Amino acid sequence: MNSQPHDAEQRAELRPDAEAAVARARFDERGLLPAIIQEEGTEQVLMLGWMDAEAMRRTLTEGRVTFWSRSRQEYWRKGDTSGHAQYVRGAALDCDGDTLLVRVHQVGAACHTGAHACFDVDPLTPALGGEGA
Amino acid sequence: MNSQPHDAEQRAELRPDAEAAVARARFDERGLLPAIIQEEGTEQVLMLGWMDAEAMRRTLTEGRVTFWSRSRQEYWRKGDTSGHAQYVRGAALDCDGDTLLVRVHQVGAACHTGAHACFDVDPLTPALGGEGA
Repeated sequence: MNSQPHDAEQRAELRPDAEAAVARARFDERGLLPAIIQEEGTEQVLMLGWMDAEAMRRTLTEGRVTFWSRSRQEYWRKGDTSGHAQYVRGAALDCDGDTLLVRVHQVGAACHTGAHACFDVDPLTPALGGEGA
Repeated sequence: MNSQPHDAEQRAELRPDAEAAVARARFDERGLLPAIIQEEGTEQVLMLGWMDAEAMRRTLTEGRVTFWSRSRQEYWRKGDTSGHAQYVRGAALDCDGDTLLVRVHQVGAACHTGAHACFDVDPLTPALGGEGA
């Protein structure tokens, strides 16, 4: 009678495309891949986090971004502590399947420093190149 | 009499800001950090590559993006073989210094498949989230 998925197994049955994506993703020797988080609309790159297969599965099936915290060795659903959730609006694997791009609607600041994006914190001043530069 | 930098040492002397950025970057246990490449203008995320300290130094000082190829174990200046150069237009480290974002002017296709971006190749169909979704 309950048509809502209520555990990971049921979600997997309901989303074979997510399971197939996790299966063809190439995780590194630690079992992780980098996930780039980009904000829908502004197109700003907000942060990079790490996912194992289960974090990727949850991200693709729950509508919220989940990372694997390398320092805390635990799953970390963005926003559960801070309220600054990342709602999934799209995703893609790259050409060799070892990086995930997730497009999100970001609630509040993505960065733990309070900056909107983690890349707002430390801008560099590289030598600029260009055709003819 | 020659005011142009012609080796890495001279470039480093001329760009102490680049050396300081390399010094505060946090490379992983392999001596690498992920570098996200974003296209100026379109704001599209083109690809993710890996840099060691020297690849980061070259990227910040030469106006062209250089990666460390994990598979070939060599430096790889994007475009030297393909002609599809990435000219540096900006860069930032993230809040904990372990990821680099490089904004570029991309000549031609960024992806070896011929796609403009590596993330154009394998779009996924995640469950979408949103406030109220």
